[in-house]
Amino acid sequence: MSETAEVTLYYAPGSVASLTLQIVLEEKGIEYTTKVVDEDKPSKEFKNLCPREEVPVLKHGDFVLQEFMAACIYLEETFGGTKLIPDDDITSEALVLQRMFSAQSIGVGDTTICSYWADYDDEDDEDYGPEDEEEDEDEDPDEEDAKEDLAEELMIWEEYLKEEGGPFIAGKEFSMADVSFFPVLAYVVWMGFQPKKAYPHLNDYYLAVRDRETVQAVWPVDWNKPCPEKDFLYLEEYLEEDEEEPKPKAKSNDKGKAKWKGKGKGKAKGKK
Amino acid sequence: MSETAEVTLYYAPGSVASLTLQIVLEEKGIEYTTKVVDEDKPSKEFKNLCPREEVPVLKHGDFVLQEFMAACIYLEETFGGTKLIPDDDITSEALVLQRMFSAQSIGVGDTTICSYWADYDDEDDEDYGPEDEEEDEDEDPDEEDAKEDLAEELMIWEEYLKEEGGPFIAGKEFSMADVSFFPVLAYVVWMGFQPKKAYPHLNDYYLAVRDRETVQAVWPVDWNKPCPEKDFLYLEEYLEEDEEEPKPKAKSNDKGKAKWKGKGKGKAKGKK
Repeated sequence: MSETAEVTLYYAPGSVASLTLQIVLEEKGIEYTTKVVDEDKPSKEFKNLCPREEVPVLKHGDFVLQEFMAACIYLEETFGGTKLIPDDDITSEALVLQRMFSAQSIGVGDTTICSYWADYDDEDDEDYGPEDEEEDEDEDPDEEDAKEDLAEELMIWEEYLKEEGGPFIAGKEFSMADVSFFPVLAYVVWMGFQPKKAYPHLNDYYLAVRDRETVQAVWPVDWNKPCPEKDFLYLEEYLEEDEEEPKPKAKSNDKGKAKWKGKGKGKAKGKK
Repeated sequence: MSETAEVTLYYAPGSVASLTLQIVLEEKGIEYTTKVVDEDKPSKEFKNLCPREEVPVLKHGDFVLQEFMAACIYLEETFGGTKLIPDDDITSEALVLQRMFSAQSIGVGDTTICSYWADYDDEDDEDYGPEDEEEDEDEDPDEEDAKEDLAEELMIWEEYLKEEGGPFIAGKEFSMADVSFFPVLAYVVWMGFQPKKAYPHLNDYYLAVRDRETVQAVWPVDWNKPCPEKDFLYLEEYLEEDEEEPKPKAKSNDKGKAKWKGKGKGKAKGKK
């Protein structure tokens, strides 16, 4: 496919995966048109492109890409602009790819961490939701687990920046690791995460990448207002007390889940 | 890193992601040593390699790879053996990568479909589990949703084989798409999915790839016995009646979830 074939992005504003692909398009300086997908009522055109009905979908000429990470790699290999995956050193490349994929464990699809809050305001589920006054006094163990997971996971990223010196998430250059991780971070900040105190490197990183021209160009309008169901995520409460060595702590509430060993990517701990 | 540096795989037998990486190692003809990770009690050595405590982890010389999909791409680019990602045609490459990533939506991590059954025998959760006789008569709506999702998702893969003629999941050559999808399929077959009737192409595909020498070399011993909590997954019951056009059907039980638009990879439907 040539660089001149038309590029169309089917996306939903505020979807983390959509934002990832939008940033790639901007960084590569690609001309593209956009079509907003109504997630509650996707068009026939969109359903035909993507039977799974998941945004984003990228079309380049007649070639349709349904998986946004594959689309990221495709755009990298097909277009010029900012180099987002190093191709001169296999260990640098592998580091970028690892962080690109790791970021998805926080924020994409029905994975543990962000999905908890994504379902938080589910009206059908009486156990959840801030309006459930009766249970206000009791802490929801699922919510506590999700917050602890998120606190620990974000500390891993804080450590990347701290130990490796940044300024970007896989080193000195802005890369596909940032394109993949930043939208997740921006989403949790919008949800109420305040990195300033316990995550100073993530805080500086967030501010710097948010102000990047290509990111501003595609910033979701809704994210300029507070999230309607904003929760204040004081995640430092969920970190180990020993702040000298803020490694993820061993869980006391290991529930011995996932006995079926075939379960996907094996988690050594029984995380939900 | 040279091909002669030592390769070590930290894995758990029967973990889908571990099996994926094992097949890559076999296909590439790489010499490697293995270390089994006790998922309930990971060693200090393993925790140091991987703070997230997730298997598999690959070590090549001093270089540690924590994300198995990044490790797949790294091995492809570093070693010879079977070519698993086409590098002569960007659209073929992108197709392989898409299917590689799509396969994860079924089976890896805490994603919708396999995670339902992975938690199925959770003793802490009284709503689940075949031993919960009292609720035997009532259908668990979550279970019904998960089975419908799985039935529809697997039909998408059946269609790939049917429409494109196979014999492999991204065309004529065995590729990283197969390495990624087959372990997921093998896992659901072990769980009780019987593809023979409604998924004839998947059935043939399963039998052929299962008998592949490299796959047999790393086949989990446990999978030769029936899964202890085996459920008979008669998924054809969950497919649309119109078998002429077995596309995923629109759901009537759209719960309007995921109102927080930032939720990861946007699903156009309100899937759980």
